Amino acid sequence: MELQRFTADVVVTCDMDNSVFAPGVVDTADGKITWVGASQDAPPVDDAVSVADVGGLLMPGLVNAHCHTPMTLMRGSGDGLPLHRWLTEAMWPREGRMTPEDAWWGMTLGSAEMLLAGVTTSCEMYLFEEAMVDAVMESGARLVMTPGVVSGLHSSGSDRTEEVSNFFSKYHDPTGRITVGIGPHSAYDLGIAKVVEMAELAQSLDAILHLHLAETREENVELEATYGRSITAILHDNGVFDSRVLAAHCVWVDNADIALLAADNVAVAHCPISNMRLGCGIAPLTAMKKAGVIVGYGTDGPASNGSLDLWEEVKMAALLARVHALDSTVVSTVETLTMATRDSAAAVGLKDTGYLAPGTTLDMIRMDLGHTSFVPVTEPDELLAHVAWSGSTRRVTDVWVAGEKVVSDGEMLTVDMERVIAEVGKRALRLARG
Amino acid sequence: MELQRFTADVVVTCDMDNSVFAPGVVDTADGKITWVGASQDAPPVDDAVSVADVGGLLMPGLVNAHCHTPMTLMRGSGDGLPLHRWLTEAMWPREGRMTPEDAWWGMTLGSAEMLLAGVTTSCEMYLFEEAMVDAVMESGARLVMTPGVVSGLHSSGSDRTEEVSNFFSKYHDPTGRITVGIGPHSAYDLGIAKVVEMAELAQSLDAILHLHLAETREENVELEATYGRSITAILHDNGVFDSRVLAAHCVWVDNADIALLAADNVAVAHCPISNMRLGCGIAPLTAMKKAGVIVGYGTDGPASNGSLDLWEEVKMAALLARVHALDSTVVSTVETLTMATRDSAAAVGLKDTGYLAPGTTLDMIRMDLGHTSFVPVTEPDELLAHVAWSGSTRRVTDVWVAGEKVVSDGEMLTVDMERVIAEVGKRALRLARG
Repeated sequence: MELQRFTADVVVTCDMDNSVFAPGVVDTADGKITWVGASQDAPPVDDAVSVADVGGLLMPGLVNAHCHTPMTLMRGSGDGLPLHRWLTEAMWPREGRMTPEDAWWGMTLGSAEMLLAGVTTSCEMYLFEEAMVDAVMESGARLVMTPGVVSGLHSSGSDRTEEVSNFFSKYHDPTGRITVGIGPHSAYDLGIAKVVEMAELAQSLDAILHLHLAETREENVELEATYGRSITAILHDNGVFDSRVLAAHCVWVDNADIALLAADNVAVAHCPISNMRLGCGIAPLTAMKKAGVIVGYGTDGPASNGSLDLWEEVKMAALLARVHALDSTVVSTVETLTMATRDSAAAVGLKDTGYLAPGTTLDMIRMDLGHTSFVPVTEPDELLAHVAWSGSTRRVTDVWVAGEKVVSDGEMLTVDMERVIAEVGKRALRLARG
Repeated sequence: MELQRFTADVVVTCDMDNSVFAPGVVDTADGKITWVGASQDAPPVDDAVSVADVGGLLMPGLVNAHCHTPMTLMRGSGDGLPLHRWLTEAMWPREGRMTPEDAWWGMTLGSAEMLLAGVTTSCEMYLFEEAMVDAVMESGARLVMTPGVVSGLHSSGSDRTEEVSNFFSKYHDPTGRITVGIGPHSAYDLGIAKVVEMAELAQSLDAILHLHLAETREENVELEATYGRSITAILHDNGVFDSRVLAAHCVWVDNADIALLAADNVAVAHCPISNMRLGCGIAPLTAMKKAGVIVGYGTDGPASNGSLDLWEEVKMAALLARVHALDSTVVSTVETLTMATRDSAAAVGLKDTGYLAPGTTLDMIRMDLGHTSFVPVTEPDELLAHVAWSGSTRRVTDVWVAGEKVVSDGEMLTVDMERVIAEVGKRALRLARG
């Protein structure tokens, strides 16, 4: 095993201590971190060890806890339509025409876009799971693939148990870059029985169960009327939360629902930009955090966000929580950085990424501190504030995943960007026009 | 007069017709635009005319309608403190130590940051107005300077009538890059009588009156109790709105207040990010627009935003309005682009910038369309959606103000960035530590 040492002006660990070392050191070998700390405390190394002084700031790669990345193919389509018309007129017709090859190109574009922004992992719910795994094997990103199980409206139908089980057996690899979960769309789309069946499958495989929960106020009206309970309580009552659940959105949850999420260890993917753009509502981030719910951040699909740059969620989630509470002390900058990294990783079922510590994988990004919006720094707290409020794409210069460098000085090493942009443009036209 | 022609893949005019020409032409001479339109309709020019094919997208520079730019010197300070402690512990002690030279450096940094982001004009309320004008003469930006008139708490006091009048006579130049208005902080800070006095001064000079209005729920409680009216109604009753008013924030205005703003032609600088970060509240953008109020966008000071990149307000204002209304059809992407350009310019009293049309000044930016988040484009509407949702700094490559190029291929031509970053860093330390 060959040791490599990185030294930087600042190392932000996002570990349980939220340590900041300035200057700091990260030692790695075989794609894993072996030591992290202040430069002055670093263990001596002999002259043969490669030492890269990268300057700037090193921190863990961000984790996008909820996404449908191939929807890059319909980014911008139907903007401003009411939600139902947006789905039925702009999204579904295009998805109906999508081939696995289209999905491969859409995923490749989005995967590169995330890596360039410093997002090293995404948790995906979509059809075309084989194509998506193939795309990520080439881009070099880390992927939690939860094959979508949806009603028959615009897809291959919901009877995918065998397909998904086989996919799990073939690709799930906790020691590699691909892990697999189960992605039943939602109770309102599939009905309770199907969600329960998928939860049992997830439990039998010890896989995460990734679903949409309480995204809009209207979506569960019928189910809730039938059962006389909130949708969150219905899922709890039916044992769905006995599996390892990642629930996206959780906008329309009240305090009783939040208590259930906390007690059942349901993790939440908070998607503020998508929730705002589609007019869904404001998820109660502060209340969920206070109750002890693990909350990570998701972009949701690029068609309902515009971007896959999770740094925008870092700024947005804190802003939205503060204005929702009319209180500027809610959600600290350290807290929001942790949610985008360590907490998002935990939410998608990964224990060895999202923070820099001995034993974690080298999923790491370097940020340039020379931009005006990182100036001035008179105290370490101010630097973290700059990173949280202004850490968007343009500052991320270098990205490593599982020890491999995939972005160098802002350039993608693994994907031919010009070609993928041209292919997505061409394929999007075909999907739009049929 | 020497004609220059620009041709581009797309020209977005932000004029009253919201025209989009693809490909398009912008002709200019002596810093003014002489013709804009589709390439196929462009008037013939002889061979001597310089034609620059810039590719990409040309549009008007953005206008930051409310800012206190020298606060770059305390960006990040006191983040997460409650509003009152943030002001009294983090901001005011630093402002108390600030010299005109500090303000010059802070303004230069912020001015360059805005130009690099494609923001060609800012409307500023601050002390140190002479230093700020000097800074902008060098950076090349357009400036609406409204010297701050504030209570004696942390400044030179509120008796500035003669000073401000002299400053107006010396610098106000509607044909150049500097115009001057009057900047009484607010009724809660100065009292009604002082605001009325400043409004009369503004009227006598035909200058804009730039003040804070209804930013927090609490700020006007005493005044409102005394008069038995809302602060907006009190200002109306006292004739303050007979002058050309630019009111920043307007978070806590009800429908009756909004009707007064509309009837009195009060323009509003909407500052969603600052209002969220400081936990102030959500300004009723949709209701104000519907009532016919002119609404532009402001970043507010960099200390309560983190950034001076007005593109973030473009995305944020639409998102916040949509989630506030629980309606995805509120605030179209065309509308939000217009608010950041033409409407902001009108709000700060400028008629010849903020849109591309014959007779306007050449305040223009070029955006690169090659980034992943501008892909795909299957219809012109989708391109405008990409610009609105993802138009942040990193896409702006070239910037012209009053016909002069100030940013070229992402590089600042007029400011030594390394030096200004170092100076602001050094001076910020002194302001922090006394």
